Amino acid sequence: MNLKNRSINVGLLGMGVVGSGVVKALTQKSALIAQQIGCSVNIARILVKDMDKPRAVDVPKSLLTTTPADILEDPHVHLVVEVMGGERPALDYLRQALQEGKSVVTANKEVMAKHGPELLALATQKGAQILFEASVGGGIPILRPLTKDLRANEISAIRAIINGTTNYILTKMTYENMEFTQALKEAQELGYAEADPTNDVEGIDAGYKLAILASLAFRTKVASQDVYREGISRLTARDFRYARELGYVIKLMAIARREGDQLEARVHPVLIPQEAPLAKVDGVFNAVEVEGDLVDKVLFHGRGAGSMPTTSAVMADILEAGWNIARGTTPNSFVTLDRAMSIRSISDLVTRYYIRTTVSDRSGVLAQMATILGNLQISIASVIQQEADHKEQTAELVITTHPSRERDVQQALKELAELEVVREIGNVLRVEE
Amino acid sequence: MNLKNRSINVGLLGMGVVGSGVVKALTQKSALIAQQIGCSVNIARILVKDMDKPRAVDVPKSLLTTTPADILEDPHVHLVVEVMGGERPALDYLRQALQEGKSVVTANKEVMAKHGPELLALATQKGAQILFEASVGGGIPILRPLTKDLRANEISAIRAIINGTTNYILTKMTYENMEFTQALKEAQELGYAEADPTNDVEGIDAGYKLAILASLAFRTKVASQDVYREGISRLTARDFRYARELGYVIKLMAIARREGDQLEARVHPVLIPQEAPLAKVDGVFNAVEVEGDLVDKVLFHGRGAGSMPTTSAVMADILEAGWNIARGTTPNSFVTLDRAMSIRSISDLVTRYYIRTTVSDRSGVLAQMATILGNLQISIASVIQQEADHKEQTAELVITTHPSRERDVQQALKELAELEVVREIGNVLRVEE
Repeated sequence: MNLKNRSINVGLLGMGVVGSGVVKALTQKSALIAQQIGCSVNIARILVKDMDKPRAVDVPKSLLTTTPADILEDPHVHLVVEVMGGERPALDYLRQALQEGKSVVTANKEVMAKHGPELLALATQKGAQILFEASVGGGIPILRPLTKDLRANEISAIRAIINGTTNYILTKMTYENMEFTQALKEAQELGYAEADPTNDVEGIDAGYKLAILASLAFRTKVASQDVYREGISRLTARDFRYARELGYVIKLMAIARREGDQLEARVHPVLIPQEAPLAKVDGVFNAVEVEGDLVDKVLFHGRGAGSMPTTSAVMADILEAGWNIARGTTPNSFVTLDRAMSIRSISDLVTRYYIRTTVSDRSGVLAQMATILGNLQISIASVIQQEADHKEQTAELVITTHPSRERDVQQALKELAELEVVREIGNVLRVEE
Repeated sequence: MNLKNRSINVGLLGMGVVGSGVVKALTQKSALIAQQIGCSVNIARILVKDMDKPRAVDVPKSLLTTTPADILEDPHVHLVVEVMGGERPALDYLRQALQEGKSVVTANKEVMAKHGPELLALATQKGAQILFEASVGGGIPILRPLTKDLRANEISAIRAIINGTTNYILTKMTYENMEFTQALKEAQELGYAEADPTNDVEGIDAGYKLAILASLAFRTKVASQDVYREGISRLTARDFRYARELGYVIKLMAIARREGDQLEARVHPVLIPQEAPLAKVDGVFNAVEVEGDLVDKVLFHGRGAGSMPTTSAVMADILEAGWNIARGTTPNSFVTLDRAMSIRSISDLVTRYYIRTTVSDRSGVLAQMATILGNLQISIASVIQQEADHKEQTAELVITTHPSRERDVQQALKELAELEVVREIGNVLRVEE
């Protein structure tokens, strides 16, 4: 077979910032691509919503179409690259492409988190490939290293900062004593947060990515609804101040951990020690820490979003798929999700806790609280009493605990809230050592 | 082809700590391996120096041999795994294995740094595969991410801490004010440094690894002798104190940088800002930062040595090669080193410098020194004068410069040393921003 005269024809679904980046990279890097896979990669057709919209990259109008079938049903299209985002209609397009035996590259975390196992099975059945490196961590190589380089490991845990928007907000709150609403506003002004920030701020986006990471790491099916989620909107500047005093920073972390055939999968704010590698991941950066039986802990750090970094990951997948298409070789389908594991309820979590309360500023308060905690086997690690409000005759009491069971902590919080001396449970956060 | 009834036969060269790790992993993880590549991987034969030596892992004595040909010339051996280290005879064995059409996995940085291009070409010619992930960064996935995940990038720079021994020593010097000899002694006692530490301490080991990284990143042939090297033995506790005062830490860094068709490749101690991600890589940990046009900076961090982490990387290569051998597929040979580039002399380096001198404690000294620097277009960024020794009537003067050319700095040092008021040029270090 003379590869030199062959060409891989790509059908591109979507031409937003990442789509434009892919078009630019395929055009500008054609020599590099040909040298790497032995044949050229051409854009055959691009699906857009609006033919006449002005675009960041010049493309001949004849390449554009608003009809999905022009790509999905064209036998000359070898590879479908989906960078449109959102669950529908992207899922339908990916399904159809695979049904037609076309290989697929996608950056779509929502589709992969919700329908990954189905699409992977379909790809295997059709002898096609589905690659999705760009769906987690933007330009950071993580899915391929996890499933290729670390494949001999039994993975025990993944800890990740995989949402740049929230990490930007939390970094502002950490270093500039900002309140959440102000930091969010600034992130929106800089284009780091959307007008409706729910997806990022409530941990939904990070939850999708964790579902994908956990599925690959533990070789089982972790669906996005299996991931326990709490967002960052109830964090206050006070929490950051206390965290600092205690030697911690606050991060929105995505954590998946295996114990035997049980899995934890959760996204929520945590206090982590200031000297932990993940504590130093600031601004819009992402990082994923993988813990395996052979390798111990490995950390991957870089830009988790943005047109160019995401294009880097999409292009790697295009070149990988292109290599196989050009040679008609079976893809090295390294992804199997057939292990039986159960998701552990958040109530069964055992970790340390940070509890901030507003209490009456009089003696005996701590004794009453400690009794409740003690009766539930929750042992106190530290207490800070501060910021007495003389007018209101209240004080702020921050308690951290030794490892305790979430169920017991929730029960304790109920009982604490009923104490006459406790005015308010200000915030409760988990501590990750 | 029924993969289930097939088996990949491995000939193992060497049974030190990594060899034992590989034997253990292949035995204990046989189910995982079979599930991942569709067939089993067996150890056919192990080359050892001494048949009767007691071993960390129990293996039937019939598997052991002291005759290389028992592995290299056995047609039933599909894959040769070399974990013996050292240039010879490892190189001869690898050559012979490839000549016989066997695929090869090696952890040997010295062989790959000195003979990588030859072996890669031989592998391609014979349709075999040579994989060497474990040769750089121990368990940290770096070579495959660099050549697969980041393959669409033009890499502009690599900055790495890739020698655990020296990083352990420097960390001790940073946080415990130790002198070099004391820190080295401690590293030796803990088994982190060898009795003859030259290879690590003089940057030879890091130089090998940088040659490999730079070759792959820039797709050209960088030989180990192309790498400029300076070790860490002339660093003193005083340098660390001044560095701290100036906001820096001192690390042994391996740096490769491209400008057009010119390459810098150098291993030497550098001052880097305390807040730089690489500044926080402490103890025996390694980290590699890759900078590409699409992805910007990505950092890979983890354990760069040790039996288990290195085994993790060797096993990944065995599984990758095994997959291809089982299916008779062409390996995705992503490594081409055919770009023409020239290595830039260290004299042409432009960077910032830290110069520590002992001078006469009298007025006018700085003026004389500044004149010499100024005449060579070296502009001063900061000056610290400290630690006057009243008895000797000397003071210590530390100068940092703005970006200057190495050639000019070396000339300045010569002229400074000739000044009557300059008693000694204490140390000169480069500063990496």
